[in-house]
Amino acid sequence: MKTPDEQKKTKGLTVAGIGEFGLIDRIKSMINPSMSDNVIIGIGDDTAAIKIDENKVLLATCDIQVEDIHFKLDFISPYQLGKRAIAVNLSDIGSMGGKPTFALVSMALPKKMSVDNFDEVIRGMQDQMKQFSGSIIGGNLARTNQGLIIDIFMMGEAQAGRILTRSGAKAGNLIFTTGCAGSSAFGLKILQKFGKRFPAEYDRLVKKQLEPEPRIELACRLAESNFVTSMIDTSDGLGADLKHICDGSEVGAELYQDEIPVEELVDDYVAESEINKWKQILFGGEDYELLFTAPSKYEDQIKEISKSSGIPITKIGKITEPESGLAVIKDDGSRMVLDGEGWNHFR
Amino acid sequence: MKTPDEQKKTKGLTVAGIGEFGLIDRIKSMINPSMSDNVIIGIGDDTAAIKIDENKVLLATCDIQVEDIHFKLDFISPYQLGKRAIAVNLSDIGSMGGKPTFALVSMALPKKMSVDNFDEVIRGMQDQMKQFSGSIIGGNLARTNQGLIIDIFMMGEAQAGRILTRSGAKAGNLIFTTGCAGSSAFGLKILQKFGKRFPAEYDRLVKKQLEPEPRIELACRLAESNFVTSMIDTSDGLGADLKHICDGSEVGAELYQDEIPVEELVDDYVAESEINKWKQILFGGEDYELLFTAPSKYEDQIKEISKSSGIPITKIGKITEPESGLAVIKDDGSRMVLDGEGWNHFR
Repeated sequence: MKTPDEQKKTKGLTVAGIGEFGLIDRIKSMINPSMSDNVIIGIGDDTAAIKIDENKVLLATCDIQVEDIHFKLDFISPYQLGKRAIAVNLSDIGSMGGKPTFALVSMALPKKMSVDNFDEVIRGMQDQMKQFSGSIIGGNLARTNQGLIIDIFMMGEAQAGRILTRSGAKAGNLIFTTGCAGSSAFGLKILQKFGKRFPAEYDRLVKKQLEPEPRIELACRLAESNFVTSMIDTSDGLGADLKHICDGSEVGAELYQDEIPVEELVDDYVAESEINKWKQILFGGEDYELLFTAPSKYEDQIKEISKSSGIPITKIGKITEPESGLAVIKDDGSRMVLDGEGWNHFR
Repeated sequence: MKTPDEQKKTKGLTVAGIGEFGLIDRIKSMINPSMSDNVIIGIGDDTAAIKIDENKVLLATCDIQVEDIHFKLDFISPYQLGKRAIAVNLSDIGSMGGKPTFALVSMALPKKMSVDNFDEVIRGMQDQMKQFSGSIIGGNLARTNQGLIIDIFMMGEAQAGRILTRSGAKAGNLIFTTGCAGSSAFGLKILQKFGKRFPAEYDRLVKKQLEPEPRIELACRLAESNFVTSMIDTSDGLGADLKHICDGSEVGAELYQDEIPVEELVDDYVAESEINKWKQILFGGEDYELLFTAPSKYEDQIKEISKSSGIPITKIGKITEPESGLAVIKDDGSRMVLDGEGWNHFR
């Protein structure tokens, strides 16, 4: 029960007013103190980690997708939707350096949903899960009077001592990212503007939004390298997720704007539209690329991993002392300080 | 992809038309064949079970609760709601003979939900989880434009070889249940009729609906006894869940109507209302009592367990050969055959 003082503090406050991260802080303060000893990572990270034995760690994460909030059936096919719901959870397991193992599928279905569409959602889930040698082993079906809801619970395993989290980055570390930033956010903008019949040249951006590919193998390789100090997937956006690393590691960071890899297509699109380009790139989210840090002496080894995996890895900045905060260094040398307002699910 | 023949079969069919168990069968046929060797129990049961090592099994289950389908905030307090969301999952772990360990909490929150209510939901979850020495270790928060959604992912552990499922019942086994049947369903009817200001004498029924108590310790004791042949919780209703045991064990069953334990209050309430009493008792669901089978020679030991645990256990019937189906034997000796149409979430 709350004291009268605590009651005063929250009076009239809504979940939208306090925001996702504010709510997570509330849960942490209510729950973390009573956490069991076997819990290596608890509330506050994308994935929880539990010690199984001396060598093995069980990872567990979930991600709920609500129709008209996280997806629109006008844009995404049922097959893509199933695949994507699994992919975003695989990405959370992967970005800790874990291997996905088992998933439970929880869904609330509108009564009028067709069995064909249902089958397609399941087929997409199954295909995506099998691609990474995991299995769907259970779940729960309910009905809803509203839109479709898909919630996936994903388990994975990792070697003890080899888990990568948002904490661990040290001042002086270099910052790297895979692939390109912002593609998914621009893909969504294009779908919102043109609908499914968008101009074919934007296909790559739209695909990044509808069919994100989790970087599981690469993430495992980076975790096994033993020199990566922190890692996260860019589900909230490059800027927002770098902020998570800064907060989790108690460090600052400098991003070199010129170095951030962005699809050329984005420039084509931005040229003909009004969108604030860098807001989308840094905070648009849903790229599901890897963002990680490592000491500078390993730069060559990281280049080698990029080459042999065929996945572009780009150095985009440097971890700094916490006092410097999180800044983007522009091409003209000026600094833009970010307050880390990425994708906040309640605002 | 579907063949043209398969396409014809599902054309125009909705998820409501095919029903929950029809959908689960579809998932089974698409997914089970590719299941990993470590999976002891996969799709189709309330809880999945995975072999961890020679002695230990990991249990995993989930249950999604949708506002206005599974609960109404007019009836249930946010604290009770949090407690209940955890309790129904604990019950699934317990009824396999498992001990709950860790939970992830996944929620989609309406923007206008108050932080006070949010805190109360979390407090209820935490209290219920702690009561059984488990921890909430993570989860996911999203927003929704619709009603509140709570999905709990519960893990537990059990000893290898000691898991109780819906299969395992043998012809000749006796059927037992804990507590009373139908109380929760009548509690709901009372709330629907009178709202929160229901007559105080019905308090026990309403409490059973709003604050179900999972029978974890008793279930573990029954699992450890090594003579219980099958067990399930009565989340779908005594009749519907006995049907699950019959299907899972490929047996028939006889229920003695006179022996089924029903709160006297139910008779008081039925006397003054029109509800089909036995439909509610057998298929109303949400009692979360234990329903289990055991060879008749253990009847005395079961009485002993009931006595020492302080939880009533009643013998209510007998497992028969599969040909006999599932029948209720009435006091006048007549048989009523049940088709097992309990709580089906889509009809």
